[in-house]
Amino acid sequence: MFKKILIANRGEIALRVIRTCREMGIKTVAVYSTADRDSLHVKFADEAVCIGKPQSSDSYLNIPHIMAAAEITNADAIHPGYGFLAENAKFANICKDHGIKFIGPTAEMINKMGDKITAKETMIKAGVPVVPGGEGLLQSIDEAKGLARDMGYPVILKATAGGGGKGMRIVWEESEMEKAYDTAKAEAAAAFKNDGIYMEKFVEEPRHIEIQVAGDQYGTICHLSERDCSIQRRHQKLVEEAPSPFMTEELRHQMGEAAKKAAGAIGYESVGTIEFLVDKHRNFYFMEMNTRIQVEHCVTEEVINFDLIKEQIKIAMGEKVSGLDHFPQMHSIECRINAEDPYNDFRPSPGKITTLHQPGGHGVRVDSHVYAGYVIPPYYDSMIGKLITVARTRDEAIDTMYRALSEYVIEGVKTTIPFHLQLMQDERFRKGDFNTKFLETFKLH
Amino acid sequence: MFKKILIANRGEIALRVIRTCREMGIKTVAVYSTADRDSLHVKFADEAVCIGKPQSSDSYLNIPHIMAAAEITNADAIHPGYGFLAENAKFANICKDHGIKFIGPTAEMINKMGDKITAKETMIKAGVPVVPGGEGLLQSIDEAKGLARDMGYPVILKATAGGGGKGMRIVWEESEMEKAYDTAKAEAAAAFKNDGIYMEKFVEEPRHIEIQVAGDQYGTICHLSERDCSIQRRHQKLVEEAPSPFMTEELRHQMGEAAKKAAGAIGYESVGTIEFLVDKHRNFYFMEMNTRIQVEHCVTEEVINFDLIKEQIKIAMGEKVSGLDHFPQMHSIECRINAEDPYNDFRPSPGKITTLHQPGGHGVRVDSHVYAGYVIPPYYDSMIGKLITVARTRDEAIDTMYRALSEYVIEGVKTTIPFHLQLMQDERFRKGDFNTKFLETFKLH
Repeated sequence: MFKKILIANRGEIALRVIRTCREMGIKTVAVYSTADRDSLHVKFADEAVCIGKPQSSDSYLNIPHIMAAAEITNADAIHPGYGFLAENAKFANICKDHGIKFIGPTAEMINKMGDKITAKETMIKAGVPVVPGGEGLLQSIDEAKGLARDMGYPVILKATAGGGGKGMRIVWEESEMEKAYDTAKAEAAAAFKNDGIYMEKFVEEPRHIEIQVAGDQYGTICHLSERDCSIQRRHQKLVEEAPSPFMTEELRHQMGEAAKKAAGAIGYESVGTIEFLVDKHRNFYFMEMNTRIQVEHCVTEEVINFDLIKEQIKIAMGEKVSGLDHFPQMHSIECRINAEDPYNDFRPSPGKITTLHQPGGHGVRVDSHVYAGYVIPPYYDSMIGKLITVARTRDEAIDTMYRALSEYVIEGVKTTIPFHLQLMQDERFRKGDFNTKFLETFKLH
Repeated sequence: MFKKILIANRGEIALRVIRTCREMGIKTVAVYSTADRDSLHVKFADEAVCIGKPQSSDSYLNIPHIMAAAEITNADAIHPGYGFLAENAKFANICKDHGIKFIGPTAEMINKMGDKITAKETMIKAGVPVVPGGEGLLQSIDEAKGLARDMGYPVILKATAGGGGKGMRIVWEESEMEKAYDTAKAEAAAAFKNDGIYMEKFVEEPRHIEIQVAGDQYGTICHLSERDCSIQRRHQKLVEEAPSPFMTEELRHQMGEAAKKAAGAIGYESVGTIEFLVDKHRNFYFMEMNTRIQVEHCVTEEVINFDLIKEQIKIAMGEKVSGLDHFPQMHSIECRINAEDPYNDFRPSPGKITTLHQPGGHGVRVDSHVYAGYVIPPYYDSMIGKLITVARTRDEAIDTMYRALSEYVIEGVKTTIPFHLQLMQDERFRKGDFNTKFLETFKLH
């Protein structure tokens, strides 16, 4: 049993971990940069150690400072949260060398999933579907046609030196290949002075659906069903939910088994997430594994009545996970409340929160480290809270979210609340008819 | 479908009803006294009408003013909340006469349960157990012995003019009857100049356990299991939970069936509660029925994943209830946060809330109408919020409650938070070893 856990993070996730530790009777140590002196994670921890200047490299990424804080306070474990050092294998190893338990997987597991090429190879070996293609440069139109026949149309041609859509062509059927191949090559040459192109399976109307897993030190792995995180803006998730409105029981079973295979392939220990792309035909492809707790873990907690941080700590203490998978009993939605101006390209809006009133009532959960008078520092990410609702049905969870958003009062800074209010009333969103491209055409009014 | 509901109440319950209305797409009208001008229920309603001066008789009990507000705003239903006019049959009738739906039972049902003697007679006829005795004055020791033999020892002798324990004697076996009878009579005569005494079955180590029921207009009634409200101070509930730690499956079945019989005996329509006393041998006795929503309804909502206000509104709109009973899936606890000084005999502590920070996170629900800067008026009850936690087990619900209480910051007034913090750490409470007398010997340190 851990007696004291140091939380090597800040903001809402530091507070999240402190809350569970307190419920488990474990003492906590907060670390903080000089910019976070007045954050709630500092106030609510049993001890707090300042670890440096505001820049992350001086504080939350400064391994020597964090290790020193752990040594001084006699912490026997470190929870890394998400971001910062959460997927840093070197840090996990240093903790181990100091005899301090890193609450997460081993350095080896982090490395295996951190390197994208190794991860993809591991998945192919384990029989987990990955997006086909991408391996080598195309040498001829005939090679391209053969490859496309193997992986099935549509496919996408991409410039090896590419970016920004240049040298990129979607090919829907063989008759289009010749023209697409030539155009892509020519565009690539013009844009990047490198006409190398390669081919990937084109994932139509992709949804981002991920499977939560938990594995113990004894080889048992279970899954805790899915989260749909397709509502993204430039790959930043804004809204997450569980279950996915796109899910079928059969697909959940298939993806759950694939996720367990993926985690099992590296003998995964701790809680983690397998991210998949799912196309409109419900084919799914491994994208990557997050070997840490995620921002959006709360929606899973709400629909399966489970404290994932507690589970993570228990696994680190050597407890077993049950071999049983968990299935959603309810519907939960999370809106990320960011200090950003949605009317101005989501530009960060740091500053002082002059007035704060958080919503409450049935089906409403708020995870936030801010308070009235809190000054949001400009150095870190702009998330100032997560608003989570839970209800028996998706419609009701959306209705509760709209109601709770309309009660949320944050003055002094701009927030994403107006964006979320509009999204909750959007017909396509309410129908569950969206994919990762959805926000590209969503206009704020 | 109601288009607009007027809430004839104030404080957290007015806000509670507004929240559900908003989630259902129903417009709301708040009414308020001049003392409640700045309450959140006024700010969050679609419309608000001032109905009078601070004294309840001038405002929240002023039927003509409330009816006028309903007429002016064109409300098609009135939700009475709890307290004030919630169990006022005359008000229910006046609503009906005005063609405005009273969200609750009919005036006739309210009357049948409002008069305690009629209610007891109805229950006896329906076969619902009531505390035996209490009907007539005792004429002799022999009569007393015969009666006690019928109802079984222990029994209690009470002065008909009594109060404050004078003329009251518990009799554990027949050999004690003679002395007890004489002493009680003599004490009654001395204290009240009236030596009339009567007998009741003595309920040993009584717990207050109540069953939530819901009935529709078509005669279907279901129960939603129990709440334990034994933690009381002078008959004021301070902490409630579901399920009861004292409950067995068999007892839940028996009490659930008895509650349905009780509600069925008056053809009850709406949500309501049958309050029972349960002795240490798990005998249970009908106390009374509350023909309205209760303060502590939230713990039931949390353990069965159900919005009771939504259910109440749907029933009033003529929807059917499912005939299925509901059983607890989780454990939930509610602490009443009152503006009272627990170190000074729970004396009310009205005034301005200068700082407010409400707890959040997994398993935490806050129902409260106050905010930083809010001035608690001295005219009404002192409850300023309800803190509710939910978890898989009772131990975890208590741990979460302790954690949440320790995060709750309310400055400017005294509150019951220190009392609750101590209670959550109390060994007897944690073991579930308590009854309605528990707080008599509980010392705050």
